[in-house]
Amino acid sequence: MVTEIEKNLVIGIDIGGTGTKIGVVDARGDILARDEGIATRAYSTFDAYIDDVYKAITRLITATDSEGLIRGIGVGAPDSNYYTGNIEHAFNLPWKGVLPLAQMLSKKSGIPVRVTNDANAAAIGEMTYGTAKGMKDFIVLTLGTGVGSGIVINGHLVYGCDGFAGELGHVTMVRGKEGRLCGCGRYGCLEAYCSATGVARTAMEMLEKINEPSLLRNIKEITSRDVYEAARNNDKLAREIFEFTGNMLGEAIADFIAFSSPEAIILFGGLTRAGEYLLSPIKRSVDKNILHTFKGKSKILISQLKDSDAAILGASALAWELN
Amino acid sequence: MVTEIEKNLVIGIDIGGTGTKIGVVDARGDILARDEGIATRAYSTFDAYIDDVYKAITRLITATDSEGLIRGIGVGAPDSNYYTGNIEHAFNLPWKGVLPLAQMLSKKSGIPVRVTNDANAAAIGEMTYGTAKGMKDFIVLTLGTGVGSGIVINGHLVYGCDGFAGELGHVTMVRGKEGRLCGCGRYGCLEAYCSATGVARTAMEMLEKINEPSLLRNIKEITSRDVYEAARNNDKLAREIFEFTGNMLGEAIADFIAFSSPEAIILFGGLTRAGEYLLSPIKRSVDKNILHTFKGKSKILISQLKDSDAAILGASALAWELN
Repeated sequence: MVTEIEKNLVIGIDIGGTGTKIGVVDARGDILARDEGIATRAYSTFDAYIDDVYKAITRLITATDSEGLIRGIGVGAPDSNYYTGNIEHAFNLPWKGVLPLAQMLSKKSGIPVRVTNDANAAAIGEMTYGTAKGMKDFIVLTLGTGVGSGIVINGHLVYGCDGFAGELGHVTMVRGKEGRLCGCGRYGCLEAYCSATGVARTAMEMLEKINEPSLLRNIKEITSRDVYEAARNNDKLAREIFEFTGNMLGEAIADFIAFSSPEAIILFGGLTRAGEYLLSPIKRSVDKNILHTFKGKSKILISQLKDSDAAILGASALAWELN
Repeated sequence: MVTEIEKNLVIGIDIGGTGTKIGVVDARGDILARDEGIATRAYSTFDAYIDDVYKAITRLITATDSEGLIRGIGVGAPDSNYYTGNIEHAFNLPWKGVLPLAQMLSKKSGIPVRVTNDANAAAIGEMTYGTAKGMKDFIVLTLGTGVGSGIVINGHLVYGCDGFAGELGHVTMVRGKEGRLCGCGRYGCLEAYCSATGVARTAMEMLEKINEPSLLRNIKEITSRDVYEAARNNDKLAREIFEFTGNMLGEAIADFIAFSSPEAIILFGGLTRAGEYLLSPIKRSVDKNILHTFKGKSKILISQLKDSDAAILGASALAWELN
């Protein structure tokens, strides 16, 4: 027998700078149908983009025979505001200004829409379907092209007074002009060191500074993936790069714990594929840098959500909060 | 006519390393009667101390004719745990180990007791009677002998998974061993620079490093108050000391805003007597260091609670949360 609750479904939409992913998701976190065919960059107007997103939604609802069962639509989008439902001046999207995403999509579909940025969506995803199930206080750090964060306190995501809280990629780790220039225009941000691109920059810097053989010397445009592959092949320099990255992440995490004393810090995103090469130095560094009061209290975990599903799941989880 | 709500009263107790302050407080934040005669340090056992605290409470209840009207007792105490009601291994108190404060006091008095540290109490006090009335997201920084903090998110104080969240005095501002040794045993904490004692240390360092006349050169054991007096008397070095302190506080606050995007940061405690000497460089520094997303959104305010009342009011505010 299918109960009423089991029949409820939600839609998750992940709007990335390159592509858009859409999925119909059930309460267990199974993706019943998905569409990953919309190329965000291909649309010159936001109206045309929303039209095609709506068409894809309609096709997915038909394919899953879920007309009338969709409880809500959750969207993860860069620079989006949970309170207003707007995307506001996103750097990575082709359309400028303030885009009334939630309003346009709910008007078209007749389904309520809730919006937040991808890191916040990831945190709600972890709480609904993932590693943070049952946790009331935790922080998700997304280690991808940039560093993002979603902070949960007392079982609720922290949006702050403006809907944009939780920009932990932009706390300052190296003060003054010795700090690396960050994409945000400031110097020394965590993101400039501990994102995938930050790791590549560290590789470049170390190769120049340290006179030591390394597999990385043969590669033209080093990526964090190359560093991982080299580390797996016992490359000393590659391991030092993760050591450096993990050490700084640990310093930052020790400060974050002093703020909200979370049960866990959950790491998410491409860089976590480095596994223990990254996790071990992070744990050592947290342990070394943390205030005695908090020693050993917060777990450092890697997200267990499947990479290919995580973005849709995170966004969809937002929709369960809708009444 | 006195309504039922107006007849409700609470008791606030502030346990400091030196003295203990107790007051009966009404819903408007008026202290109807107070006792500041208990010298915390004078008691060799916690039992004897609690006995005398209880006696003082009884006297105050009699004096205010409020038998049966006391809704709860709120206590601000160092290293105290909101969840358990215990004081745990407090450095600044004469008794060691875990002290079941809430349990002992509620058993004796028959009144429910709630406990937290003084900075958290200050934040609840600001929300109940002070500058933060009506705010749902703000951070109180207490700038006294140490630096403490109370963080409010979505209208609730942040206690974290263990009851000890909000130790913003111990985020690291200067990394590595160049950082000043902090009372917590670590290096470079905000508290080691931006507390009253931190300001005195800065004064000593600057007097040694900078070859410049200053009123401070005539003083043997410089306090933050001396620095303030000198600044008022146009002492250039004294003003540079506040400039340095405010600049670092601004850097730290910019990071805190990236975490929770609060409506306001409220400064509290002895150091705030420096007024604009401190506030101006803080505001300039926040503005310089903040991520563009948050620019101009969070107010930087000085607490308006009367110094002599603030500790009792903060503690008492905890008790209004009791049912």
